[in-house]
Amino acid sequence: MAINAAEYSRRLAATRARMGDAELDALLVVDPANIHYLCGYNAWSFYTPQAMLVTPDQQPLLVMRAMDAQGAHRTVFPDTAEVDGYAESYVHRVDRHPFDAIAERFREAGHGRRMRVGVEGDAHFFAVRGYLALAKALPEWELIESHELVNWVRVVKSDAEIELMRAAGRVSSHVMATAVDAIEAGLPQPELMATIQSAQALGTGDTAGDYPAIVPLMMAGDAVDTPHLTYSNTRFNEEAVSLELVGVHKRYHAPLARTVSLSPPSQELERLAEVTAEGLNLVIDGMRPGMSVADAHGLWQRHISAAGFEKDSRLGYSIGLGYPPDWGERTVSIRGDDHTVLEPGMCFHLIAGMWLSSTGCEISESVTVTASGVEVLTDAPRELIVKG
Amino acid sequence: MAINAAEYSRRLAATRARMGDAELDALLVVDPANIHYLCGYNAWSFYTPQAMLVTPDQQPLLVMRAMDAQGAHRTVFPDTAEVDGYAESYVHRVDRHPFDAIAERFREAGHGRRMRVGVEGDAHFFAVRGYLALAKALPEWELIESHELVNWVRVVKSDAEIELMRAAGRVSSHVMATAVDAIEAGLPQPELMATIQSAQALGTGDTAGDYPAIVPLMMAGDAVDTPHLTYSNTRFNEEAVSLELVGVHKRYHAPLARTVSLSPPSQELERLAEVTAEGLNLVIDGMRPGMSVADAHGLWQRHISAAGFEKDSRLGYSIGLGYPPDWGERTVSIRGDDHTVLEPGMCFHLIAGMWLSSTGCEISESVTVTASGVEVLTDAPRELIVKG
Repeated sequence: MAINAAEYSRRLAATRARMGDAELDALLVVDPANIHYLCGYNAWSFYTPQAMLVTPDQQPLLVMRAMDAQGAHRTVFPDTAEVDGYAESYVHRVDRHPFDAIAERFREAGHGRRMRVGVEGDAHFFAVRGYLALAKALPEWELIESHELVNWVRVVKSDAEIELMRAAGRVSSHVMATAVDAIEAGLPQPELMATIQSAQALGTGDTAGDYPAIVPLMMAGDAVDTPHLTYSNTRFNEEAVSLELVGVHKRYHAPLARTVSLSPPSQELERLAEVTAEGLNLVIDGMRPGMSVADAHGLWQRHISAAGFEKDSRLGYSIGLGYPPDWGERTVSIRGDDHTVLEPGMCFHLIAGMWLSSTGCEISESVTVTASGVEVLTDAPRELIVKG
Repeated sequence: MAINAAEYSRRLAATRARMGDAELDALLVVDPANIHYLCGYNAWSFYTPQAMLVTPDQQPLLVMRAMDAQGAHRTVFPDTAEVDGYAESYVHRVDRHPFDAIAERFREAGHGRRMRVGVEGDAHFFAVRGYLALAKALPEWELIESHELVNWVRVVKSDAEIELMRAAGRVSSHVMATAVDAIEAGLPQPELMATIQSAQALGTGDTAGDYPAIVPLMMAGDAVDTPHLTYSNTRFNEEAVSLELVGVHKRYHAPLARTVSLSPPSQELERLAEVTAEGLNLVIDGMRPGMSVADAHGLWQRHISAAGFEKDSRLGYSIGLGYPPDWGERTVSIRGDDHTVLEPGMCFHLIAGMWLSSTGCEISESVTVTASGVEVLTDAPRELIVKG
């Protein structure tokens, strides 16, 4: 199931509808996942500025570095965007900025007039210099924080997208099974990294992989009390190891985390993992459309509080398309003060990550909300995995 | 050879000296490579805001998300930075921003006074909302574009860093040799991706690898006329393929690109590759300290012009430490109007990338400037590699 012309039309229409709600005359899209969502463009070109201008009635105009614009037609879906390039002479200069050229191109296209223009102020790859250059070059524009406008369109997935998320989940489950099978005390961390990355790239026999927005994360020994560490040139000991991994299919991500104990676990860790898994199960069993995120979070919160544990960080977040450095959508967060109402087609990484002092445990699943509850996209034993 | 306390002191002193030259009372560092350079911190935490404040006389203060701050001591070199965390409640909110909390922490530390503060306006991961929040929360500060201040300190490498770059070069050469050995018509692109990533993760027997700032790029068939494309779920044909790869050692990058022809190449491609390699050789043979970058570029430019070719894009750029999405330092560009004078210890990716229409060729090397010329850090046949 591929993303077809009708789906791209729907996405653009939904974006324009939100623009209307926010009384925006135009929206400037820089988040690579949002650009991909609206036109399919896919390349590792986002380290130099690129921006798409969406207006209510014209084809979106995507401007990027000339050398990248030359190949954009290879991934841009037909008739979703006009692509134009800016000259190389704007790259990495003190005296000018690519957004000078991007702004000029927008002016040439007739957009140099009084408008309320939404900007993605919290997107990765929209640099401060770009924002300031834009403000200077197009003083007619009133720049307005869009607060993840396209990301919010992305929150509810179409049936075609859910198929892609299921595919990502299959890759993810395969990646985790491969990692759990390979890991043991004495194994060099680089070897596990290589094994995991191979599985991510190859996918399963039937389902293609893709490169991940976040490299495989592995926290070993005392370091299980922290997330987001990368591998090092050491060997695993007889210790606990948290693996935060992902399977990716056509840029859709289904993360999956587990803690694996390579020695008989302490009673403390066993109990922590038990409570963590129980809490996660309560949420998975209890989440349903019409419920608020806060209420779903409450299922977790009450359980771990009763068991004497605390977790300051959120229990999860909305997922879908992703580019480095993040597979999250930066919209819904599963926490007590997020009152978003769950709808079918929303997808979340529910990450029950407990980072205590010198111990910790991560058990997560990627899920999608269905008509009656949730479907779990990932598959691995939902417990502390002991290989001791 | 590791980065020791003396080297961290030297780096901080050099940063402070440049701050003095720019009449800055403080510098806000957000680029993950710059943070790593100044204190060694290393984690995949840069997708939520983090910032280090460097002043003339106090220990740098690094503020990041609380869950990441908890583990920062695992990689921060002793006595290089004080680390503090902001509360989870600032993450991904409409009504507040992590930079509200970061600014408050700076105020608490006594920095809420009239100061000229340099900011990295073109750094990745310094979002517009962060900049605006900072400006609002610390109105005493005059925010001044620092124009890659720390990146410019990084341009000239120490002896210890050159050792790390050599190590990265060894990994890089091994990665390319592995890829060239594996690629053939009929091979699925995902299999080559897996092979390359394994080699990157494992390094050579003696030299550890690390994860790259840019995933392996592969452009096949007609797509050799563009850079920066990622792999797809297809098989290589009897065609030309450009591989833009890298070896990484302790976050230092030595990129290496080659075009491999999986069939007897056309005369057009053969001639293009010949001219490209000759031009690159002229630069490698001619570059020396004291020469300007523009003059080095001229060696290339005159050769390809005489041969009837054009290249709009720069011939290379400064390299060293890197985090996604880029292994370049965003400082020196090898082009005709960059008048930086070459110094021993500078490192460059010289990328002779010729992207014509439906054909193209990439031949690159990573080099470091020595006392008398350049040392090539990477090793692969400097020509169109034919495996047809």
